[in-house]
Amino acid sequence: MASLLIDIHTHLYPPSYLSLLKARKTVPYVHQPAGSSSPRLIILPSDDDPSIPQHQRGRPLDPSYSSLHLKLQFMKQHNIAASVVSLANPWLDFLPANEGAEAARMVNDEMVALGSSEKFKGKIFAFGTLPLSAPMDLIVQEIHRLQGLHKVIKGVILGTSGLGKGLDDEALDPIWHALEETGLLIFLHPHYGLPAEVFGPKLAASGHVLPLSMGFPMETTIAFTRMYLCGVFDRFPKLKMLLAHAGGTTPFLAGRVDSCVRHERAFLDKSGKLKQRRSIWEVLKENIWLDGVVYSEIGIRAAVDIVGSDRVLWGTDHPFFPPIESEETEQEWLSVKLNIEAVEKAQEPNSTSAKNILGLNAVTLLDLELPSEAYR
Amino acid sequence: MASLLIDIHTHLYPPSYLSLLKARKTVPYVHQPAGSSSPRLIILPSDDDPSIPQHQRGRPLDPSYSSLHLKLQFMKQHNIAASVVSLANPWLDFLPANEGAEAARMVNDEMVALGSSEKFKGKIFAFGTLPLSAPMDLIVQEIHRLQGLHKVIKGVILGTSGLGKGLDDEALDPIWHALEETGLLIFLHPHYGLPAEVFGPKLAASGHVLPLSMGFPMETTIAFTRMYLCGVFDRFPKLKMLLAHAGGTTPFLAGRVDSCVRHERAFLDKSGKLKQRRSIWEVLKENIWLDGVVYSEIGIRAAVDIVGSDRVLWGTDHPFFPPIESEETEQEWLSVKLNIEAVEKAQEPNSTSAKNILGLNAVTLLDLELPSEAYR
Repeated sequence: MASLLIDIHTHLYPPSYLSLLKARKTVPYVHQPAGSSSPRLIILPSDDDPSIPQHQRGRPLDPSYSSLHLKLQFMKQHNIAASVVSLANPWLDFLPANEGAEAARMVNDEMVALGSSEKFKGKIFAFGTLPLSAPMDLIVQEIHRLQGLHKVIKGVILGTSGLGKGLDDEALDPIWHALEETGLLIFLHPHYGLPAEVFGPKLAASGHVLPLSMGFPMETTIAFTRMYLCGVFDRFPKLKMLLAHAGGTTPFLAGRVDSCVRHERAFLDKSGKLKQRRSIWEVLKENIWLDGVVYSEIGIRAAVDIVGSDRVLWGTDHPFFPPIESEETEQEWLSVKLNIEAVEKAQEPNSTSAKNILGLNAVTLLDLELPSEAYR
Repeated sequence: MASLLIDIHTHLYPPSYLSLLKARKTVPYVHQPAGSSSPRLIILPSDDDPSIPQHQRGRPLDPSYSSLHLKLQFMKQHNIAASVVSLANPWLDFLPANEGAEAARMVNDEMVALGSSEKFKGKIFAFGTLPLSAPMDLIVQEIHRLQGLHKVIKGVILGTSGLGKGLDDEALDPIWHALEETGLLIFLHPHYGLPAEVFGPKLAASGHVLPLSMGFPMETTIAFTRMYLCGVFDRFPKLKMLLAHAGGTTPFLAGRVDSCVRHERAFLDKSGKLKQRRSIWEVLKENIWLDGVVYSEIGIRAAVDIVGSDRVLWGTDHPFFPPIESEETEQEWLSVKLNIEAVEKAQEPNSTSAKNILGLNAVTLLDLELPSEAYR
C-alpha cells in the first residue's frame, strides 16, 4: 500500500486576496497586460526588474494559484489525501495599518469556508494569516479568533519581517505570547530573500534560481537564528514552529551557530563565563518542526538527524514549481517526485519513519480529522 | 593509535602582510590604540561599526595571528602533524592595481621560506595568494610561478569577489584556465559575508555570531552556485576546488538548486527543452572537495553524502575561535574538539573514512611529503 500523503506546504490565493493584488502597482502586484497575454504575478522584489518588459516580469498567474478545483485535481493526481493550505507570500505584510485586520478576517474566513464545505471537508485544512500591519490588540484578537476555528485552521503562516524589524524585535512578544498560549503552530515562510546585490550583475541570466534556491532558504535560516539569539525561545519555551524548506539551511548550520555562540565574547558575563541560554540543539528538538521540501535525500537525512523523524513533515510547495517541459503537464510533477524520493531514499522505503514523514506526523501534530478512506 | 591529523584550514598573517594592514585606516586595517591596549584587527565590514569605540572594534590582534612559533605550539598541543596554512581574508583583494603583484610575490615567498626551513619542513605547507587587483597577465604569471613552488605551495586561496564582480564574471576565464592547467587546488574562502541589513537592527547584541555563522557560509554557497550556474565547471571541467566550512551550506541546498534549475524557464531552449549542462551533483562529485570545519556530525554526514568520504578534509580555522573562558586557554580548544568529534560521530571511530577525513585525504590530494614519524 502507498503511504498516506499529507501536504503541509501548499499555497492558495483566495479570490479576495487576488483582488487586493490586482489593485496594486508595486510589489506584490498582479499586472494584466493589454491584449491577450495572461496576467503576471510579481511577488518577489527581484521580479520587479525595470530592465524586463512588464509583460514578462514575474511569472504567469495561472488559475492554479487560486483554484481549489485545480488543487484537488493536483492532490488526486499525486494521491495526496489532505492539504494544509496557506496564503502565499507576502501575505498581508504590505497593507496599511487600518486595512490589515479586516483583510485577515476575510482571508481566514474564506479558508475556513473552503475547509468546512461538504466537498472539501477532511481534505483541506489551513494555516491562518495574521494582520501584522494592524494595531497589536487586533493581531492578538485575530490569533484568539483563529483558535476557535480549529476544525480547519491548524496554525498561522508567518513571514520574516514581523512588524518591520524582523522576528527578533521585542515588540513581537505579545504575539509570541498569544501563539504560545493558543498552541497554534507557526509556519515560518520566506518571502524577502536576500538583497539582489549578493547575487551579482548576472542575476537575471539564471531567472529565479538564485533568489529561490539561495535567498529563500537563507532568509528563513537567518530569521530563525535571530529569534534564537535574542532569546525568543527562552522567553516563550512552548512556542511551536514549523520551518519552511526543511529549515532553509538550519540543519546544516546549527553546529556553526552553536560554536559561534560558545566562542562569542559578547555573551560573556562579568566573571568571564558564558551566559546561560537554551542550546540551539535543545530548541530544535523541542520547539521546531521542519517541512520536507528540500529535494534531496541529503537534506531529509540532515533534517531527521536534527529534529527527529517524528518532526519532519512532507510537502509540495504547490502550485509553485510546475513541470516546465510542455509534455509533462499531465504527468506526475517532478517537484513532487523529487520530494517523495528524497524521503524514501533517506529512510527505508515503507518504514515507520518514512510513513511518518510523508503523512502521519501531520495528522498527529495538527490533529487532522481525515475521512476513514484516507487510511485505506 | 590516534589518527593522523592534517589541518587544511588554518590561517597565518606573515609579517609583511601585517605591515600592510597597519598602514591602513579602512577595512581591513590594524588599529593601535593609544596607551597600553593591544592592537585591534578590523577585517569584516561589519566590524567597522562607528557606534563601537575604535579600541573595541573587531578583535584583539594577538600574536597567534602571525607567530609561526605559536602555530607549532597549537599543532603540538592538538597532535596535528602538518598544517596547510593560508593567508586570512581579505588577502590582497584591496590593493591598488600596481601593488598587487609585488605584494603577492612577497607573501607567497614568505610562505615558501617558512615551509622550506629545516624547522618546519614537512609540517608547514601553504596555499598561495593571487594578486587579483593586478593586470591579468601578472595574475596568470603568479599562478605559473606558484606551480614551480610545489614542495610547499599546494594550491591557492581565493575570495568570492574575483575581479570585483564575483566569480561568475567571464573576465576570470584566463585565471580558471591557468588554475586548471597547473592543477592547483583552489581553496574558496568567504570574507564579505552578507549586507548588514539582513541581520537587522539587533546585530551588535550577538557580536560576531550572525556574520560568522550565517554570512560566511552563505557567501561561499552563493559564490559556488553562481560559478555553477554561469557554466564555469562546463568550460573548465578539470578545476579542483576546496570549499571552506564544508561548502558553507552547499551540501544542504544542492537539491534545491538542482530542482530550481530543472524548473527554470530561463534555461529552456527554443524547443521548450532544458538546455544541457553538467548537473550540480556531478560537479560536486568531480570538481569539489569540502573542508570539515562544520562543528557537527550532521554537517560532516551531509558533506560525506554529497562528495564522498575521500573528498572531505579536516581543519581547525586556527587562530580564529580560541577558547574564551579564561581557564581554558592551555587546554584543548573547544573549536578543535568539536570538529574532531563531528568526524568521529559521523563515521565509525577509527574507521578508514574517519582517518581519511582527519588526515589521509589531504596527504593524497596535495601530495604532502611528511616526515616518517608523522605516521607512527
